[in-house]
Amino acid sequence: MAILRNRVSALKNLIEPKFDGYIATNPVNLLYLTELLGAADSLGAAAMLVPKDGESTLYIYGVNYEWAKAEAKNCTVELVKGNEELTKKVSEQIKSQKLKTLGFDTMTVKMNKKFSAALKGIAKLEDKPEYVWNLRKIKEKGEIEKIRKAAKLTVDGMQAAYDAIRPRISEYQVAAEIEYAMRKNGSYGVAFESSVASGSRSAYPHGGCGERRLESGDLVVVDIGARYKNYCADMTRTFVVGNSSTRQEKIHDVVKEAQERAFGGIKDGVRAADIDAIARTFIKKAGFEENFVHGLGHGIGLEVHERPTLNSLSKDLLRKGNVITDEPGIYILNFGGFRIEDTVLVKEGKAERLTRGLYV
Amino acid sequence: MAILRNRVSALKNLIEPKFDGYIATNPVNLLYLTELLGAADSLGAAAMLVPKDGESTLYIYGVNYEWAKAEAKNCTVELVKGNEELTKKVSEQIKSQKLKTLGFDTMTVKMNKKFSAALKGIAKLEDKPEYVWNLRKIKEKGEIEKIRKAAKLTVDGMQAAYDAIRPRISEYQVAAEIEYAMRKNGSYGVAFESSVASGSRSAYPHGGCGERRLESGDLVVVDIGARYKNYCADMTRTFVVGNSSTRQEKIHDVVKEAQERAFGGIKDGVRAADIDAIARTFIKKAGFEENFVHGLGHGIGLEVHERPTLNSLSKDLLRKGNVITDEPGIYILNFGGFRIEDTVLVKEGKAERLTRGLYV
Repeated sequence: MAILRNRVSALKNLIEPKFDGYIATNPVNLLYLTELLGAADSLGAAAMLVPKDGESTLYIYGVNYEWAKAEAKNCTVELVKGNEELTKKVSEQIKSQKLKTLGFDTMTVKMNKKFSAALKGIAKLEDKPEYVWNLRKIKEKGEIEKIRKAAKLTVDGMQAAYDAIRPRISEYQVAAEIEYAMRKNGSYGVAFESSVASGSRSAYPHGGCGERRLESGDLVVVDIGARYKNYCADMTRTFVVGNSSTRQEKIHDVVKEAQERAFGGIKDGVRAADIDAIARTFIKKAGFEENFVHGLGHGIGLEVHERPTLNSLSKDLLRKGNVITDEPGIYILNFGGFRIEDTVLVKEGKAERLTRGLYV
Repeated sequence: MAILRNRVSALKNLIEPKFDGYIATNPVNLLYLTELLGAADSLGAAAMLVPKDGESTLYIYGVNYEWAKAEAKNCTVELVKGNEELTKKVSEQIKSQKLKTLGFDTMTVKMNKKFSAALKGIAKLEDKPEYVWNLRKIKEKGEIEKIRKAAKLTVDGMQAAYDAIRPRISEYQVAAEIEYAMRKNGSYGVAFESSVASGSRSAYPHGGCGERRLESGDLVVVDIGARYKNYCADMTRTFVVGNSSTRQEKIHDVVKEAQERAFGGIKDGVRAADIDAIARTFIKKAGFEENFVHGLGHGIGLEVHERPTLNSLSKDLLRKGNVITDEPGIYILNFGGFRIEDTVLVKEGKAERLTRGLYV
């Protein structure tokens, strides 16, 4: 039996009693709440007003109005005309519904000023992004299926990278083969800019992808993700062009073992910081503490970086239904970098790797 | 002779006398000011402190530190350790330099609160995004060359769309061919999610790209952009699968003529709203006023939507060195959509189309 959850109703249930409404303006949150399939960048200025009692309304400009009216779930859709101001229109509704205290998700200082001016003496707004995060970080069955598909497409891309990597090919040509494989097999686009960082640039965790041509003996850190119906996957493998050196193999083994040990600890109820510590302690013992310059991982879903956060300072607990990454790395300036990353589904017992294979 | 402009010095020259410093935290602005080549999404939390007098500093976390230290221009780079808070670290520096009044670019309410707490009684912050926009909207020669290259790659992608479109192919397979052509020829990625909106979905301006298979007689609105070294291009063409109908041809002609007339008016010093009006008036006379549901265009550069804005309410003047889009459209529910878009360089005299050809 499938539970068909109305995400806006679920949001209302999370709102603390002192609030009589909520405003969402973050485009990704709006896609989440309405279940609209599209690019967050294309949404433009839009807002959803969620009164604690009564119907919720998505306010949207003409360029997206007919689309949203036809396809948005869990709300009614209202047109904001070209000569109307979004914040004014929402504020008028807050006034007419006599809402007094509202939470909101994320807002720029500029938008907050506009709301404050329009609502002076009428209603108060308070920063409450965690309500929507608390929904988004526990994935529904349908969301997990989409991430699973994105993960499968990402593995196809990684296989294409493996097949393409050879001396003289440029980083961007490898990326072309990766993205073509993912797209042809059904990807809706990339979850983030594909990274094919080779040679000494592999020592930068976000080394990117440029015109450099691969050379025999190079380390190549390939960090890629497909997107399927708005949902992201994230996977990294580290390759060597031609024959690997003993030093390269030894460090790769350290990262692989750190990743595996952390994976073994992932399950419902554990502290994210403790999982980070499993990988970090192992890497420290191997002598590379200073070279692991980032957290172990992050939540992933509609965005590539979501809650929960896996690093040494994280206060998050891992929960069944979280989808996270497990990605330790070792980066050595003027030598190169190593990172192995999988997208992982947190379960009650043993976790599930969604991006499997290609540990070369 | 090339003028090598230090963008941070240029920013200092724009700051009004009442400010003794500026804080940039928007990741795209940070890429602009430092001339770093990379994805804005990968930058994470970072900030640049620009004192009116003295050296500017980019504060950045460990994952990006070595990269930024090696490659960032126009500033020094300082590490923010994992257990340090970015806003606190910047605030300490503001305090030690005795800066009293600072402008900033864009900030969430949350980050603004953190700064306000750390700077209470010490310094005041004021929302001043326009300083950086005023720099970014006039493109330097090197930026124009990158956009020119992105535009050329985008035309390659559009040619691939033209070659791929046929009955039974799915929207995402067309996108696969488009993106492969752009990538193989040197693109660093897509400027935005490629849109291949066919059939009745072409009537949504942001119709996206899904699993629908094309049918004979379909309208297909293809809206794509390559990215070259961080710089975007943007181009739309409207195709018909197989033979076009007289109605389709007539409406396409209206959009084409509207686009051409607007293009003819673009030059240094004209009002953006007047250029929008040229296209809008022509479309209105043809009887489609209600079907042109968006502005005529937008600036483009490091982001796909930048300043200046071309719509009926815009207060912007077009200036030599702006790069903008010219993209009228007509959208008819249950019939289909038409849009023609080029990326255009504003000059003193006649403007220059950077995405030429394929008006099919």
